[in-house]
Amino acid sequence: MAKLTRPIFLLTDFGLDDTYAGQVKAVIAGIAPAASIFDLSHAVSPFAIEEGAWLLETALQALPANAVVLGVVDPGVGTVRREIVIASGGRLFVGPDNGLLSAAFGEGTPGLARTGSTDVRELCAPEFRRPHVSATFHGRDIFAPAAAHLANGVDYRMMGPPVTGVTVLPPFGATTGAPGELQAKVIHIDRFGNLITTVRAAQLFPSFEITVGATLIDRRVHTFAEAPEGLPFCHADSSGFIAIAVNCGSAAETLGARPGDAVTVRAR
Amino acid sequence: MAKLTRPIFLLTDFGLDDTYAGQVKAVIAGIAPAASIFDLSHAVSPFAIEEGAWLLETALQALPANAVVLGVVDPGVGTVRREIVIASGGRLFVGPDNGLLSAAFGEGTPGLARTGSTDVRELCAPEFRRPHVSATFHGRDIFAPAAAHLANGVDYRMMGPPVTGVTVLPPFGATTGAPGELQAKVIHIDRFGNLITTVRAAQLFPSFEITVGATLIDRRVHTFAEAPEGLPFCHADSSGFIAIAVNCGSAAETLGARPGDAVTVRAR
Amino acid sequence: MAKLTRPIFLLTDFGLDDTYAGQVKAVIAGIAPAASIFDLSHAVSPFAIEEGAWLLETALQALPANAVVLGVVDPGVGTVRREIVIASGGRLFVGPDNGLLSAAFGEGTPGLARTGSTDVRELCAPEFRRPHVSATFHGRDIFAPAAAHLANGVDYRMMGPPVTGVTVLPPFGATTGAPGELQAKVIHIDRFGNLITTVRAAQLFPSFEITVGATLIDRRVHTFAEAPEGLPFCHADSSGFIAIAVNCGSAAETLGARPGDAVTVRAR
Repeated sequence: MAKLTRPIFLLTDFGLDDTYAGQVKAVIAGIAPAASIFDLSHAVSPFAIEEGAWLLETALQALPANAVVLGVVDPGVGTVRREIVIASGGRLFVGPDNGLLSAAFGEGTPGLARTGSTDVRELCAPEFRRPHVSATFHGRDIFAPAAAHLANGVDYRMMGPPVTGVTVLPPFGATTGAPGELQAKVIHIDRFGNLITTVRAAQLFPSFEITVGATLIDRRVHTFAEAPEGLPFCHADSSGFIAIAVNCGSAAETLGARPGDAVTVRAR
Repeated sequence: MAKLTRPIFLLTDFGLDDTYAGQVKAVIAGIAPAASIFDLSHAVSPFAIEEGAWLLETALQALPANAVVLGVVDPGVGTVRREIVIASGGRLFVGPDNGLLSAAFGEGTPGLARTGSTDVRELCAPEFRRPHVSATFHGRDIFAPAAAHLANGVDYRMMGPPVTGVTVLPPFGATTGAPGELQAKVIHIDRFGNLITTVRAAQLFPSFEITVGATLIDRRVHTFAEAPEGLPFCHADSSGFIAIAVNCGSAAETLGARPGDAVTVRAR
Repeated sequence: MAKLTRPIFLLTDFGLDDTYAGQVKAVIAGIAPAASIFDLSHAVSPFAIEEGAWLLETALQALPANAVVLGVVDPGVGTVRREIVIASGGRLFVGPDNGLLSAAFGEGTPGLARTGSTDVRELCAPEFRRPHVSATFHGRDIFAPAAAHLANGVDYRMMGPPVTGVTVLPPFGATTGAPGELQAKVIHIDRFGNLITTVRAAQLFPSFEITVGATLIDRRVHTFAEAPEGLPFCHADSSGFIAIAVNCGSAAETLGARPGDAVTVRAR
């Protein structure tokens, strides 16, 4: 039994300790009481647009075809950066025009552009905002009502004029270094201490070694349990990127690694 | 498409690591399967009634007009403190009679009383409790079923007799000190390190300076991005209270401030 | 108004910082858009099957009779450990065959076996999995779609053949030591610093003393507020197990206790 409303997925840097995420949901519930609202994550580091963009990109393949994504990592809130909605392949993405929603433009090819077919509108129409818009909480006052009306079936093109020159981050992926070499970085460390790198699984050489800090990893496995306990190995993560992990342990602790650390892949 | 059920909003000190919040939702789902349940926050400091009351008050304006609020910060659980439901302006508030739900009685005027029109009932009727009520988890055994039945449309007046002498906290707000001076405190520090004070935006002098600890702040802005990076400034927060913030930084770290710290405002 | 779909309850070690739990919900929402999805907890310690099993057992009594439980604490993901669904008393439990879901087999009697009547199937049928199953994220690719189809009303027996030899943990409870003595341990420390032990309330001697580390506790109360502030006491917790607590304080801090610490009960 399909609902008539689109489901809404939230990705923010609001955390869960304050009521910010709760207020966003409350505003949505007031406008779209039948909409289902799901948290992707509210734990993006404060103001970390690239981290948020990466989390969105890797979660995207799990989202329903009619999803509304509400993303808020917004250091420029209240300034001239625009508020936008992006239509892409049946899904709708609402948030600030600062690169956070880049996944809507497709994964792209590392070193080249993203190539998704999209239509972008500015969120101007006052009837889809809260009557009073605060200077610092557009998540609640602009993006939440927009997402709610979209969930209710409002045509995104009614929300404002077409926008050009949208901020889009470069595609995530390793870049080419010396011959037979890829340069990348640790883009995310997850709860288990897995180091997710910007190396796409498809970029990997048939035979290779990976260096993170002072550690060289040349063991590749398909499942954690194949690897000896305590030794780091790499594998194609469920995100589609190459991750460094330790069976029943934390690669971040074992390697002393941190987000942003350089990753080098060399063909052998 | 409006649901027939009222949405339920949770505010507790249960945290999210244990299953306490989950058990509350499970009980609600068993009684009111069509009700939407939303977290305002489960991160109220353990037993911190005033903090919970403040979080509720500042989130209230975002809640739908038919919301059921289920609040549990309950150091007196199992003792003679009463369990109550408050009807206020179409919304219903369920929880312990200890001041946590004071927002239901209106914002009030600092130094004066709260003035909302309310009707309060004690949660006595056994048919709206779980058959076995534990001594220490009334959130699950009394408040959750009450909220669920209210969401289903049960008249709150069926749940018990009228109550008088309900515990209500004084209105939040700065108090008057020496002439041209307001005394307040840091009531909350949010995820971004913003210091939210008890000074209501409407209380502020046209020209002023604010002291928090050893730091004097006389810069007021409307948006974060107007402020030079690294320097503290104040602004009217989306909560309606005056906050001290640092552009792309943490005011709590910059000022070394903590919840409860004294805040003084002087006219200039 | 009952929904046609079963509600789904999640218990994992995914945490809430990554998008793992969000991706699980997204997959469910795509298949069962009308299903309600609730978090029991995502804070099980990484790979801690016994802790997860205990959290599930103690939350179980709050779950609706038609609940689908989706449990994922899965150090063996991608290996030969089976994926299963357990039908037990109207509820359905989906997850890895590693003991996490032992609560489905009944509480049992400490020292004896669990005795619940269950039917267990292996999750084999490809039409109830995602088209591409990753090696490391069966929560998203196998368990989430299975739970969603079950919520939609699919008969669990269509998902695969009967399974025997399922991994079931021994019943939680104190074991008998010397005459008049019970041996147990701290199985969980909650947000309030309460020490939950493996002693079932029904196992306690009429008159007794409990030792945790160097601390002897012989004070038993029914509600927190009965106890003098600062002194540890024991009570029958809402989980059905004996807990050590401190009124308006943290027993874990007061006693310096940690999960796994030995607990001894002696008759007096």
